[in-house]
Amino acid sequence: MKNYKLVLGYDGTDFRGWQRQPDGRTVQGVLEEAVRKITGKKVVVHGAGRTDAGVHALGQVAGFRGAFKLSDEVLLRALNAVLPEDVRVFSLAEAPPEFHARKSARSKLYRYRIVLSPQPSPLDRRFVLHWPYPLEVGPMRAAARLFVRTADFTAFSSNRDRSPIRTVKRSGLLRSGDELVYTIESAGFLRYMVRTIVGTLLEVGRGRIAPARIEEIFRLRDRSLAGPTAAAKGLTLIRVDY
Amino acid sequence: MKNYKLVLGYDGTDFRGWQRQPDGRTVQGVLEEAVRKITGKKVVVHGAGRTDAGVHALGQVAGFRGAFKLSDEVLLRALNAVLPEDVRVFSLAEAPPEFHARKSARSKLYRYRIVLSPQPSPLDRRFVLHWPYPLEVGPMRAAARLFVRTADFTAFSSNRDRSPIRTVKRSGLLRSGDELVYTIESAGFLRYMVRTIVGTLLEVGRGRIAPARIEEIFRLRDRSLAGPTAAAKGLTLIRVDY
Repeated sequence: MKNYKLVLGYDGTDFRGWQRQPDGRTVQGVLEEAVRKITGKKVVVHGAGRTDAGVHALGQVAGFRGAFKLSDEVLLRALNAVLPEDVRVFSLAEAPPEFHARKSARSKLYRYRIVLSPQPSPLDRRFVLHWPYPLEVGPMRAAARLFVRTADFTAFSSNRDRSPIRTVKRSGLLRSGDELVYTIESAGFLRYMVRTIVGTLLEVGRGRIAPARIEEIFRLRDRSLAGPTAAAKGLTLIRVDY
Repeated sequence: MKNYKLVLGYDGTDFRGWQRQPDGRTVQGVLEEAVRKITGKKVVVHGAGRTDAGVHALGQVAGFRGAFKLSDEVLLRALNAVLPEDVRVFSLAEAPPEFHARKSARSKLYRYRIVLSPQPSPLDRRFVLHWPYPLEVGPMRAAARLFVRTADFTAFSSNRDRSPIRTVKRSGLLRSGDELVYTIESAGFLRYMVRTIVGTLLEVGRGRIAPARIEEIFRLRDRSLAGPTAAAKGLTLIRVDY
């Protein structure tokens, strides 16, 4: 039995997210189906991050176990031949027996793109949030930095069940031409956490939430005080480190 | 009667090219239909470049004449509200009466993207040619420069009717990471000219055509000596100058 580690990317537009569903096209679903088609065997593919519907990935990591007669290189080629073109496997290699894509992950890096121009490029339309309204970027950048901390992120997520304490190692907003690029890195994220932080930064940019209030929102643990959940399409899982 | 100049972009994937057709979705067709929906009037929209099926644009220029009661700003917003999201109008302004999007154009700049990595990003898949095979980039760069000239481009096009003499002002290949980006600028192009030049450069990269042979192919005016027409999806009209 080999333990496989895959690095993959996908255009999340036409997926109902990572996690397998009884109906509905999911990334986990098409990957498991691809392995079954090639090897005839049913496997469970674990993903480092269970991305939501519409969220993209350029460096998702996944893993599965199996005993197949194919070399890694042949299996990689076969997967890309069988998979739909909105999912691509960049690499496949044997991992140590204890490797688990989600549990072994030390940190994940997400990027969120916001295009400020009156009209976004039609070539980017699936991968960015289009925001053609005024924004004060300075306060947004200051607010972005305030998320670097070990804290209870209840207010900035739709978390219900799990422990709400997370450690964010990096949180920054850069302007590049007509685009704002938000980058966040953490060992783990709560549900909708990145998109709620982005939604909150947009409220800061509109002057509706002062950066100084972020502290209070953390403390009050009240989701309704943070901004709305920003659209999934702007979010991409960039990298997972082990 | 006002003469309008538009700058627009489109994802060419789901279009049968620029030019209106009895059946088949075209960029000219959806633009003319959008103007008709908004103003109730039939117009003819001229494009600077009649891009082929599958070719994209980030800086196509188009023009049409009409007398409408809407301000330019309102017309621009209405167009983007009515147009499908794979076409976006970036700007709209009144042009001098003599302005004609195609006839007045002084030069057009096209870019062709070739991705060399074993698997392309699924986010770029509609906009690049994927070429996961060995290529000698040095000879390709040398050959690319040989297209800067005033010459008969019959061998590098599917031209039949028009004068085959064209002046290419810029023709260069750059490597940027895993990607080759070919840029070409000319006052005018023959049918399939950019894609045939790219197809020829790929043959050079594969060692099948020596850069030194380009001169001979120009002279012999024989299409069969040049490379195949590269796929439309890698090509984007970047800019039109007047």
